[in-house]
Amino acid sequence: MAQLRKDLTSRTWVVIATERGKRPHDFKVPVDERKGESTCPFCPGHEEQTPPEVLAIGRENDAPDTPGWKVRVVPNKFPALSGDAAEPSFQDGPLIQRPGIGAHEVLVESPDHDSSFGTHSQEQMEQILHAMIQRIKDLRNDNRLQYVQLFKNSGRKAGASLEHTHCQLIATPIIPPVVEEELQCAHFYYEKHSSCVWCDILNKAHESGRVVEASPHFAVLCPFASRVPYQVLILPIRHDGEFDELSPDELQDLAAVLRRTIRRLEVAFNNPPYNMQWHISPLQGPGQYDQYFHWHLELLPRLTIAAGFELGSGIYINPTAPELAAQELREVKIDAATGI
Amino acid sequence: MAQLRKDLTSRTWVVIATERGKRPHDFKVPVDERKGESTCPFCPGHEEQTPPEVLAIGRENDAPDTPGWKVRVVPNKFPALSGDAAEPSFQDGPLIQRPGIGAHEVLVESPDHDSSFGTHSQEQMEQILHAMIQRIKDLRNDNRLQYVQLFKNSGRKAGASLEHTHCQLIATPIIPPVVEEELQCAHFYYEKHSSCVWCDILNKAHESGRVVEASPHFAVLCPFASRVPYQVLILPIRHDGEFDELSPDELQDLAAVLRRTIRRLEVAFNNPPYNMQWHISPLQGPGQYDQYFHWHLELLPRLTIAAGFELGSGIYINPTAPELAAQELREVKIDAATGI
Repeated sequence: MAQLRKDLTSRTWVVIATERGKRPHDFKVPVDERKGESTCPFCPGHEEQTPPEVLAIGRENDAPDTPGWKVRVVPNKFPALSGDAAEPSFQDGPLIQRPGIGAHEVLVESPDHDSSFGTHSQEQMEQILHAMIQRIKDLRNDNRLQYVQLFKNSGRKAGASLEHTHCQLIATPIIPPVVEEELQCAHFYYEKHSSCVWCDILNKAHESGRVVEASPHFAVLCPFASRVPYQVLILPIRHDGEFDELSPDELQDLAAVLRRTIRRLEVAFNNPPYNMQWHISPLQGPGQYDQYFHWHLELLPRLTIAAGFELGSGIYINPTAPELAAQELREVKIDAATGI
Repeated sequence: MAQLRKDLTSRTWVVIATERGKRPHDFKVPVDERKGESTCPFCPGHEEQTPPEVLAIGRENDAPDTPGWKVRVVPNKFPALSGDAAEPSFQDGPLIQRPGIGAHEVLVESPDHDSSFGTHSQEQMEQILHAMIQRIKDLRNDNRLQYVQLFKNSGRKAGASLEHTHCQLIATPIIPPVVEEELQCAHFYYEKHSSCVWCDILNKAHESGRVVEASPHFAVLCPFASRVPYQVLILPIRHDGEFDELSPDELQDLAAVLRRTIRRLEVAFNNPPYNMQWHISPLQGPGQYDQYFHWHLELLPRLTIAAGFELGSGIYINPTAPELAAQELREVKIDAATGI
C-alpha cells in the first residue's frame, strides 16, 4: 500500500511505496573509473591549473598557489555566474531576464586526491567547515549577492566531473526559488503554530524512529517525506538560521557528525553517488528570518532516477520508507571513536 | 556572460551560459545495451506477462490479452499508486499523509519492439494519441482522482527500465505541486495582463527565433528559460486547456508534429535519453481553468545532470542558449513528407 506524504517545508509530495522496502543491496551502485592524480588540477603541485586561489588554509608560508595547503578555495574555471556580467535586466510580457552576476567557487577539501567526507580526519573536516564559513562571511560583504548555495556532488552520476574530493558554492543575485519556498512555508507554519517547522520535525522524528543518530548539537534523521531512498537531513538541535555562526563546540560536533553520516552511506552502499545541499539563510537582511528559519543540510543519495513523472508533477516515488532507511543506517558498523 | 532567465509559468530560474553554446556533438550520449524481444513483456505473444489490459486498439477479434493489437494499455505490474489503498489521512504538526489512491498504467505504443516516437508511422502515432485520450476520459469518471500525469521516459538514463517503446500515466488523488504552481502562475499572469501566458510565450518565441517549426495547429519551440539543453515545448496554437478535446484535424497534426520533433532529436543526438511530460488541466472542475490554462507538452533531453546546485536552489544551469538550440533543431534534415 502506498502512502502520499509531505512535510510542510516544501510543496513536494512523495509516494512512499512501503511494500517495496528496498534495502541497500537492492540498489545497483555504479563504480566510477578513476583517472588518478597525475592529471588532476586539484592535487598539490598543480596549483597553476586553477584560477588564482581565493583562500587557502594550513599553508605555513605565504606564497599563494603553491603546495602546503590543507584546504584550498579557487574560482571555478568555467563559472556559472561571475562578478563581471553586464547584460541588462528586462521584462517583456512572460519573460524575465537579470544579469548573471555572482560567484562560483570550488573548495578543494584535502590535498589527498582519494579522501572523502567519510574518510577525512576530524581535523581536516573541521578545516573544511572553517573554509566554508570564511567564504560565506566574505561573500556577505558584496551586497549585490542574495544567497550562497553551498553543495557537494560526489560521484559521476551525481554530476561530479572531477574526482578529487571537493565542494562548490555558487553565489546568486536572487534568493533561489527553493529557498524562497522554504522561507514561505516556514513562515506560514510559524504563523499558524507559533513554532519552527524544523524544531517540530525534529521532535516527530524521535517519536517515529526516523533518527539515525543524535549528537550533542545535531540530529541526523530520515525525513518523513523523503523524496529519495536513504535521504538524510542533518539538523542543528539549537534553533538557528545561520550556518556561519556555529560555536566552536558545534563546529567540532558537526565535523564528526558529517564524517560518521557519510561513512554510513559509503559502507552501506559501497561509495554511492550523492548530492549534499546546505540550506542556509539569505545573505542580506540579517536576523530577518531568525524566528522561523532553521538551517539544515540535505543529503540525497543518487540511487534512483527522477524521470517523467517526477519532472512533470513534482511528486516523487520512493521505494524505501524513511523508517526503514533510518534503521538500516543506524545499524551500519562504523568505528564509534574515529567515525571510520 | 551569463543570463539569469525565467518565464512566468513556474518559479524556476535558469542560468543561460551563452558563451558555452554547446551544440549536439558536444554532448556524450549513452548507448543503451539492448536486450531484444525474446524476454520482453510488452511484445505480442507475451500478453500474459502483464496484468490484464485496460484498453487495446486495433485488435480485430475480441479476445483480450492476445496478439493483434496496435496499441495496448495495461496496469503497471508494480504500481506507484493503485485503486485499493486504504491507509487513513492524517496531519500531525509538520507532517501530512494521504491514502495513495490512484492508477498507474503503461501504454505500449506499438507491437514493434524497436520503434519509437520518431519512427512510428503516422497512423500508429494517431492510434497512440487516441489511446491516451480514451484513458484520460475514462479516469475522469473516478471522482477520487484529481489529475492524470501522462509521461514518456525514453532510454535508461531517462529512467526507462523496459526498452520496448511505451508511455505511462499515473493518476493522483491530489493536484500535483508542479501543476498547482503552473495554474497559480498562469492565473496571476492572466489577472495582470488579461491574456494567457502561453499565448504570449508563443508570440515572443516567433519574435526571437526560438521556433523550431510551426504546423497548422501547433508550435514547436525552445522556451526562453529552458532548464536543459535542447528543451522543447509543444504548444497548441489554439488556446485550450484540454488535451482530450483535440479535434480530428488537431490530433492528426499533433501526431505528425510529435514524429518530426522526436525525429529531429534522434537524428541530432543519435537517440538521446529524454523525458516528455503532458501538462494538462486537472480532471475535475471542467471549465474552471479555461481562461488562463493552455495545455502543452514538455520535452527534456537528458544530456546534463541536475546536481547539488539545481537540487538545492531550484536554479538550473543550461550550457545551450535556446536560440541556438532552436536553430540547430530547425536545421536537422528529416524527410518533410514522412517526418523521417
